[in-house]
Amino acid sequence: MSTIVMKFGGSSLADPEKIRAAARRAIAAKRKGNKVAMVVSAMGDTTDHLETLAFATAQQPHKREWDQLMATGEQVTIALTAMALHDMGENAISFTAAQIGMVTDDVHTKARLKRINARRILSELDAGKIVIIAGFQGVTEAGDVTTLGRGGSNVTLVAIAAAIGADVCENYTDVDGVYTADPRIVPNARKLDTVSYDEMLELASLGANVLHNRAVEFAKKYDVPIHVRSSLNNRKGTMIVAENPAMENIVVRGAALKEKLARITLKNVPDKPGVAASLFHGLAKAGIVVDDIVQTLDENKKATVSFTIEMRDMPDAETVCKGLIASSLKGADLSHVADLAKISVVGVGMRVHTGVAERMFGALAEAKVNIQNITTSEIKISCIIDSADGKTALRIVHDAFNLGGRPAAAGKATKKTPKAGK
Amino acid sequence: MSTIVMKFGGSSLADPEKIRAAARRAIAAKRKGNKVAMVVSAMGDTTDHLETLAFATAQQPHKREWDQLMATGEQVTIALTAMALHDMGENAISFTAAQIGMVTDDVHTKARLKRINARRILSELDAGKIVIIAGFQGVTEAGDVTTLGRGGSNVTLVAIAAAIGADVCENYTDVDGVYTADPRIVPNARKLDTVSYDEMLELASLGANVLHNRAVEFAKKYDVPIHVRSSLNNRKGTMIVAENPAMENIVVRGAALKEKLARITLKNVPDKPGVAASLFHGLAKAGIVVDDIVQTLDENKKATVSFTIEMRDMPDAETVCKGLIASSLKGADLSHVADLAKISVVGVGMRVHTGVAERMFGALAEAKVNIQNITTSEIKISCIIDSADGKTALRIVHDAFNLGGRPAAAGKATKKTPKAGK
Repeated sequence: MSTIVMKFGGSSLADPEKIRAAARRAIAAKRKGNKVAMVVSAMGDTTDHLETLAFATAQQPHKREWDQLMATGEQVTIALTAMALHDMGENAISFTAAQIGMVTDDVHTKARLKRINARRILSELDAGKIVIIAGFQGVTEAGDVTTLGRGGSNVTLVAIAAAIGADVCENYTDVDGVYTADPRIVPNARKLDTVSYDEMLELASLGANVLHNRAVEFAKKYDVPIHVRSSLNNRKGTMIVAENPAMENIVVRGAALKEKLARITLKNVPDKPGVAASLFHGLAKAGIVVDDIVQTLDENKKATVSFTIEMRDMPDAETVCKGLIASSLKGADLSHVADLAKISVVGVGMRVHTGVAERMFGALAEAKVNIQNITTSEIKISCIIDSADGKTALRIVHDAFNLGGRPAAAGKATKKTPKAGK
Repeated sequence: MSTIVMKFGGSSLADPEKIRAAARRAIAAKRKGNKVAMVVSAMGDTTDHLETLAFATAQQPHKREWDQLMATGEQVTIALTAMALHDMGENAISFTAAQIGMVTDDVHTKARLKRINARRILSELDAGKIVIIAGFQGVTEAGDVTTLGRGGSNVTLVAIAAAIGADVCENYTDVDGVYTADPRIVPNARKLDTVSYDEMLELASLGANVLHNRAVEFAKKYDVPIHVRSSLNNRKGTMIVAENPAMENIVVRGAALKEKLARITLKNVPDKPGVAASLFHGLAKAGIVVDDIVQTLDENKKATVSFTIEMRDMPDAETVCKGLIASSLKGADLSHVADLAKISVVGVGMRVHTGVAERMFGALAEAKVNIQNITTSEIKISCIIDSADGKTALRIVHDAFNLGGRPAAAGKATKKTPKAGK
């Protein structure tokens, strides 16, 4: 007997019929002899509807009350899902975060989990019930409702699985799994059978929007395997698992493209302690997420600081920089480059294989794609390029590492990849 | 400084603008130096929407999950109301029933309150916040969400007021107050300034749908005055208060009509212990509410039992009776009269004044309204009549007791009541 936690996103629960379909999936797993818990999101457009109500009622909705409001979305779904299960003859019980003691800090709209009281869930599972838990929400020590922020339902999924010692998490979404690249851009992208937590973390932060990083970090921390799969069929998806030695045989697991980036450069920055801190503190305070940072020192002991941000944040970032130039960074020169993209390859095999950077740069050069910046981590190589080259570069790199085509198990060669063969 | 609890029903909170209007009312009371708590219902048609979802998901929605679902309606409203208050510069905090420990029994969909932990509410009021509480809901000792059934939000209003020792409850509705009779039937019906709990209980059970009996019983038990008033204007409504000696100067406070009734009669019923019990137990089990009961004994020691029910329950009630005749009531004869109405007058003054019944029967006789049954309580006289006579009878009785016209304070005589003058 295994314990399974299934998570269904909002698009998989958009109407009563879809809720019943999710219930049928849970029942099928239960009747195979498993213990089954479900984590559910708010139905389809419920969150949009609640947001509209909030902004029609208040110009700046109060954050505690925002969470109190938003949490109703998942509460509706847990109740309906439990009703569907009862209606199909299965015993079931729904729980809000407060009812099972999913305790968080009190940072409303992006609270962090502190602990879960698994006792109630375990005793209901032992009693033969399917347990349905509201995703995305938590409760403070004082009993206030919180929400977990972006990707919160997946955080709930992994946290519940860890708390009750589940054998597997199933994350039902509207995609089939994790791909070697975005299939909308790279037609011969291939679904991966497995990917390590670290690879998934790099791929997620590089624009593969399957699972939010916080959920993957949580899964890694508690070693909970996640099965990302489609709610529309019964095919196996992608297992996100702990790294194992065999994984290093694959040099590059996937390639990712992040678009709509800009780079800001500050030259002639005085090289003294605290300068970088004041810059990035100012950007963080303005809510700007900074991607890569490069700092170099010239012969005059002046620093050049470059950083990459999303295009839409550029005006705010320049305002922050100008403020600092007027105060603590006097004499620094500000410039920017807009319309950039970042192309990256990711794989734990890079730790033991050499020549990855060389092959990537060679393929891009052959296609006359100009590389503006390079950053690397232990399992990733990223190049900043012109936005106009982005999609072409992704296809070229994907082919250069022979990522495409049907998997061998399907009995087809990778005919579509002329540049294949390392 | 007074403590006020204001309750707003769903029609007074149907959209963000109405929620803001309710918030402005609370702020006005607060800025006069009062401590203010609000009890709110679900917005307008939210409950209908949730019911539709439930029945689209399950044929027979599970009761625990039904309550879990329905309670989201009020949770949305408390959050939006608190947002509106913050947006207007007032400090405010919203609470679900669970958050303030409104503990009930575990009879889902019609739970009964056991206790309220007033501490959190009081400390937030002391901190200068407007406290917004979800009506209609409760929580069991085990932490399950319950709902209080029909009139539940008014029960919450009175219970909160009692728990925090409020000076007054304000019940904002879409009517101006309690009238001497239904103004839709009796054009010269007059709004009452005050009415006693007992009078209100009789009037409510007789068809004056302003406040559900459970809320009035609660208010009487804890001696909480309720001000029933309109959310559309600032006029004084009706105070529902403990009886005082001066009230007995008014013989009849109001008249009420209940329509769509039927009477079932069982003749030749064996006169032995337990017969009535088995009959009314069977009816209760079938969910049939029985109004008046009359039992008489004939010379052959056989009983005749008559009882009044709502028309729509008649088929079920006859099924119950036939079942009993086939088993424990062998030999009894079943008959019924359909299309009846009940006309009643209510007033605590009846305790000390005589001649009320006489005047009522006289007025009905003069108008050739045939009286089929009479029942009385200490402060009420009711007559069962033909449904066709109902509305006419209400106007006649209303006039006979000089209830109509403008109140004297408005400076007008009661010219519209030719039969007036006791």
